[in-house]
Amino acid sequence: GVRTPEPIDHLKTLMPNVYQEFHDIAERLEKHYGDMQDLEFTIENGKLFILQTRSGKRTATAALRVAVDMVEAGMLTKEQALLKIDPAQLDALLHPTFNPEALERATPLTKGLPASPGAAAGMVTFSAEEAYEESLKGHAVILARTETSPEDIQGMNVSAGILTSRGGMTSHAAVVARGMGKCCVSAAANTSINEKTKTMTINGTVIKSGEWISLDGSTGAVYQGQIETQKAALSDEFRKIMEWSDEFRTMKIRTNADTPQDATTARTLGAEGIGLTRTEHMFFEADRIFAFRQMIVARDVKAREKALAKILPMQEEDFKGIFEAMKGLPVTIRLLDPPLHEFLPQDPAQVKELATELNMAEADLQTIINDLHELNPMLGHRGLRLAISYPEIARMQTEGIIRAALAVTTDEYPVIPEIMIPLVAEEKEIAFVRDVIVKKADEIIAASGKKLDYMVGTMIEIPRACLTADEIAKHAEFFSFGTNDLTQMTYGLSRDDAGPILETYYNEGIFENDPTATLDKTGVGKLMEIGCELGRKTRPDMKIGICGEHGGDPSSIEFCNYLNMSYVSCSPFRVPIAKLSAAQAALKQKK
Amino acid sequence: GVRTPEPIDHLKTLMPNVYQEFHDIAERLEKHYGDMQDLEFTIENGKLFILQTRSGKRTATAALRVAVDMVEAGMLTKEQALLKIDPAQLDALLHPTFNPEALERATPLTKGLPASPGAAAGMVTFSAEEAYEESLKGHAVILARTETSPEDIQGMNVSAGILTSRGGMTSHAAVVARGMGKCCVSAAANTSINEKTKTMTINGTVIKSGEWISLDGSTGAVYQGQIETQKAALSDEFRKIMEWSDEFRTMKIRTNADTPQDATTARTLGAEGIGLTRTEHMFFEADRIFAFRQMIVARDVKAREKALAKILPMQEEDFKGIFEAMKGLPVTIRLLDPPLHEFLPQDPAQVKELATELNMAEADLQTIINDLHELNPMLGHRGLRLAISYPEIARMQTEGIIRAALAVTTDEYPVIPEIMIPLVAEEKEIAFVRDVIVKKADEIIAASGKKLDYMVGTMIEIPRACLTADEIAKHAEFFSFGTNDLTQMTYGLSRDDAGPILETYYNEGIFENDPTATLDKTGVGKLMEIGCELGRKTRPDMKIGICGEHGGDPSSIEFCNYLNMSYVSCSPFRVPIAKLSAAQAALKQKK
Repeated sequence: GVRTPEPIDHLKTLMPNVYQEFHDIAERLEKHYGDMQDLEFTIENGKLFILQTRSGKRTATAALRVAVDMVEAGMLTKEQALLKIDPAQLDALLHPTFNPEALERATPLTKGLPASPGAAAGMVTFSAEEAYEESLKGHAVILARTETSPEDIQGMNVSAGILTSRGGMTSHAAVVARGMGKCCVSAAANTSINEKTKTMTINGTVIKSGEWISLDGSTGAVYQGQIETQKAALSDEFRKIMEWSDEFRTMKIRTNADTPQDATTARTLGAEGIGLTRTEHMFFEADRIFAFRQMIVARDVKAREKALAKILPMQEEDFKGIFEAMKGLPVTIRLLDPPLHEFLPQDPAQVKELATELNMAEADLQTIINDLHELNPMLGHRGLRLAISYPEIARMQTEGIIRAALAVTTDEYPVIPEIMIPLVAEEKEIAFVRDVIVKKADEIIAASGKKLDYMVGTMIEIPRACLTADEIAKHAEFFSFGTNDLTQMTYGLSRDDAGPILETYYNEGIFENDPTATLDKTGVGKLMEIGCELGRKTRPDMKIGICGEHGGDPSSIEFCNYLNMSYVSCSPFRVPIAKLSAAQAALKQKK
Repeated sequence: GVRTPEPIDHLKTLMPNVYQEFHDIAERLEKHYGDMQDLEFTIENGKLFILQTRSGKRTATAALRVAVDMVEAGMLTKEQALLKIDPAQLDALLHPTFNPEALERATPLTKGLPASPGAAAGMVTFSAEEAYEESLKGHAVILARTETSPEDIQGMNVSAGILTSRGGMTSHAAVVARGMGKCCVSAAANTSINEKTKTMTINGTVIKSGEWISLDGSTGAVYQGQIETQKAALSDEFRKIMEWSDEFRTMKIRTNADTPQDATTARTLGAEGIGLTRTEHMFFEADRIFAFRQMIVARDVKAREKALAKILPMQEEDFKGIFEAMKGLPVTIRLLDPPLHEFLPQDPAQVKELATELNMAEADLQTIINDLHELNPMLGHRGLRLAISYPEIARMQTEGIIRAALAVTTDEYPVIPEIMIPLVAEEKEIAFVRDVIVKKADEIIAASGKKLDYMVGTMIEIPRACLTADEIAKHAEFFSFGTNDLTQMTYGLSRDDAGPILETYYNEGIFENDPTATLDKTGVGKLMEIGCELGRKTRPDMKIGICGEHGGDPSSIEFCNYLNMSYVSCSPFRVPIAKLSAAQAALKQKK
């Protein structure tokens, strides 16, 4: 109605009988639905009429409190309570939010996609370098870019939030930000970012480097100025829900983590291992990108090995840090995946600079860059194809992994590294690469005089790998479904180029979801089912997991549970969501 | 032995008994093996010893003659004779060859891949325009390019042969040349082609525009100067083998043809319909590329429709010509497939020129080109995704097809056009596009007052289309497997970028064939089998064919026969090979 509502206690005083009747009905309804009810009623001539009842809408905090309260009041079982909570709601509890009063006074400049949840305020910077320098001065910074690329990682790492004018929910910025648990708004509408002049224009408002903006990664809103944020605090109810989830779920929850910091964050949130360590980001770090580029431009194996030798000790340190952070929990490390051209500059000025640094003719470097150019890099010279062309890279990485494991392993926390080969499509490919890895690993272990177990497995991310999984399983001790690539190849749709296509498809009702965000059970799922079935035909007890973006999506997790997977692996900040989703899936399957 | 062999008749005179014995043994062996035998024997002390026997190696012409002779002599049945011939050998009979004596005197400058068979000699030209101009003067020309692109079609069409320094067996140059039945050598070793200076350097020899070279597309050899060629002439034996093939095969043989000329050539060689007319080449023709570019840069539907209206009458003429050439045989026309950026220039000078022509600011045109840029165009905005974003293109093409069919159809040669939708991955996509086509087609037919049947079907070329073929078949009256794209997506391997990968894979024994040339029965084949099975679940009598490069490959054709396909479709000059292969497959299956 239009009147201001009065508290229900008022009724108790006015009409004690009616109040008692209302109270009894409400209790019955809440018990019946097993949920807090939103009741509409009217009283005419002293007679109570219940007009409507429905489960109450509530904030994440309230949802958890209600669930825990109802279990403690004996109105719900733990199983029923877990099934009442929407896992997606947990996201809000894990990230900073804006102070509600401050937010009420603010009007957004524009909206973009809510690419990674949380709230952040900071000074705008327009390059990774600028973000890094300002952060050293102790400033909170926001990194604004047309789109981000692997070179921006360090700048993203020091920023409170990331804003891009292009890209979708699965663009580089979105995926990396979610991994870092950092707020990100992508594809901001009517926003033009000019990295050269260090300004951006949002709906006509010009914002310069150093000015403050605020981002809400949960809604996609972008604000001018600084809105006060408040930190996330995990409540007792949250811990209880996690505890109950652990009780009922059957799948393990691992995390995707590329650094010891990520690994530690994920363990705090309950991760039971690492399902994916991407090693490519490691090569972009300032201390090794040069050596890696020397390797790329090298003319023979010897020169390549010389350059790789410089990287080896650093890789070893990378892996040591991660193993230490995980204290004996399983760690899967994927060998280098992206095509080599991603590590070379494209901009002519940068090419010139690099040629000087490498002490080679600019034209020669340009020729190498041209030769490495690919029309469809996603379907190009990457993954284990690199390990076949340049086994010395796989050897160096294997050596780093095994040395690190030998250095860190203890009786209390034994390290059993899981070396993962990306992009297999055919049995003979993995047989070749496995052989390279095993020879080097066994050689290092033998020389150390110690004992160390390790596993060699593979990503299943190409349709043909699913279709020939029985043959591939002969050479792989574990499978991890890379559903990002598998989805793109099964649909013939590149997520980097899908933006305008998806827009039309949503408008025409052809797609309801982005299949790279929510697993397509009909098509991609059928391939996964074939892959699991064939893989288990060869190795009945094979460990099978998933490490794509889908590993943190509730409905996709339910499907993984149906496929009887050992674990799902997701970004650190999605671990709690994955735990609850896995528990719900197990409970639903039991029914 | 080292002695000069003597004719066998000599033995008849010398040792008549031994001769008779030899004659009887030889006859028995040839009958036993059902093939001409290469016999090694010795005679010691008047006693005949047979040392070795094996089927004789022979040229294609001889192979056909032997097979026909043996059938006529009653030594082989027709079935046995057909199974004796290697279909790949027929290729040599369909194309010009070098005069053997002239060839003997020549030494190749270099070798490349035998990308399209036949022999050719001509003046070197370095651009499509130059080739066209020289051909107008009556000169035989060879087009030499680093690699070719759709803009070169006209120049390729007037050339006797094509030479490229890059690309593989399935590069643009190779595929188009095979379609045209023109000789092509691709990836010529140690060859650097400079289009700007109009020179090329092959192993140190500099060849300038206007100088003569000769190409052997069957061996990959490149010669300096002019080697005399001789035309292909189809022998009586060839016709007989084709006749017998027709008797035993169960699959129809169609052709891929984009022009009335191609269609006519293919009919002469025995094609029973067109399985694929690509419409994109039509838009590159000088009289319509400008209107098509106007369409691309148009800001709204109205402006797009205005530009498309200019193309409509030309498209109608294209289709009329093809229908007329095929005289009532079935014709499948595929709607526009490639992404729009393929139709716009990339070179800054050309962009500037086009901006002037289009009467728009260069910066605006550059923005449109940048916005259309894709990271992975093969997995981008193409195929039916274009028809969903711009239904006006599909409507214009449908109108052209239906108008042409109405104009050409007669009682004697009724035209039943088969409109083919490319790149479907999901049921709702095809439902949408089918609806656009059917509405327009029915409107045109109703307005004409005539009767016309037509079909709407789809390419199956994305893994997900195979996996959901039952749903897709609800909206498709026929399927045509596009195994080029299906192979690339199933392997996650772009054929444009596969060169360096395949080289290593062959060396390491990982691949034996290029899977885009010989169908991968284990992986891609499994998807095709799923696609056929699911499609027939919805439409038991569904017409299913193949129109990828594999449609002309003998072992792939055998697999298509196993899948019980209605037809295979291949380049015009591969029709005879496909006929014989289809007959062999049917005979083997019967066994």
